[in-house]
Parts: sequence; C-alpha cells; structure tokens
Amino acid sequence: MNIKACITVTLKNGVLDPQGQAIRQALNSLDFPGIGSVRQGKVFDITLEDTSEPDAEKLLQDMCEKLLANTVIEDYTVRIIR
Amino acid sequence: MNIKACITVTLKNGVLDPQGQAIRQALNSLDFPGIGSVRQGKVFDITLEDTSEPDAEKLLQDMCEKLLANTVIEDYTVRIIR
Repeated sequence: MNIKACITVTLKNGVLDPQGQAIRQALNSLDFPGIGSVRQGKVFDITLEDTSEPDAEKLLQDMCEKLLANTVIEDYTVRIIR
Repeated sequence: MNIKACITVTLKNGVLDPQGQAIRQALNSLDFPGIGSVRQGKVFDITLEDTSEPDAEKLLQDMCEKLLANTVIEDYTVRIIR
C-alpha cells in the first residue's frame, strides 16, 4: 500500500526565530494590522511505497529523528494522510 | 479576540523541487526503504490580535497573496486554529 504523509517541523517555544521576526516586520510594513507573532517552520510531503500504516509511522518518526528535524531546537509532528 | 492560524505554502504539482529531491537522496543514502517522493514546503504560525474569525481569514488570504506565497508556483492553505 502506498502511504502519503505530511511532516511538520517547527522551532520549539523559546527558540529565537529571526526569519519569523523578519516576516512580521515585512507584514507590518505592508500595513497588515494586529499581528502578534509569526513563526516559520517546514513541511515535508512524503510518499512511501509498499508499506503499512504502522510501519510507515515508525519509519517517518525515524526520518525526523535522523534527518528532517534538529530535535535539540525543533519539534515535529507526523500525520498520515492515506 | 486573538486568533491563531497556520498557513501552509507548498509548490504546485509539476513545479520542480530540487530541495525535495536532495532530501529524498539523503533519505535513500541513510537506507530508508520505499521512498516515492518528497516535496518540501513552508509553514507559518501566525497570531492575530483583536480580530474576528471572518476578518482574520480574509487578512491571512491577503498576506499569502501579497507576501507569503508566490502564487505563480506555489499553493497555500489557511487554517484557523482558534
């Protein structure tokens, strides 16, 4: 079975996000009102072939730990789509 | 009311994604099996202050069109969290 998954990697709370701050300033200078905070993260859409849902979930967690996220400063969530 | 929203920006289908291809090769070289495709996108967590849900949705769409997404090659989705 082919599995589609979506992995979201975001900075942990408290970790400085200069990219997000730059975006907030840019939005302010475009006159968007009332912007509290902006944090930027990454999203990965991954297709896995010939696997089952529990296997895929384990594999994707493993990918995050080893490559996709820096777990010292980033959190990740894995969501299986189908 | 304060509103939290999550904006996801991904490349349109058919647009070449060299970053995603590099990640796929890296995952292959780490011996992860059965990887079909990898596409990378961006996610923005935005907090808006003193607004209502319909206003926030309109504002966020506007932000995507004007700054956050390049609508020639990227799609975006806006999701209000609360």
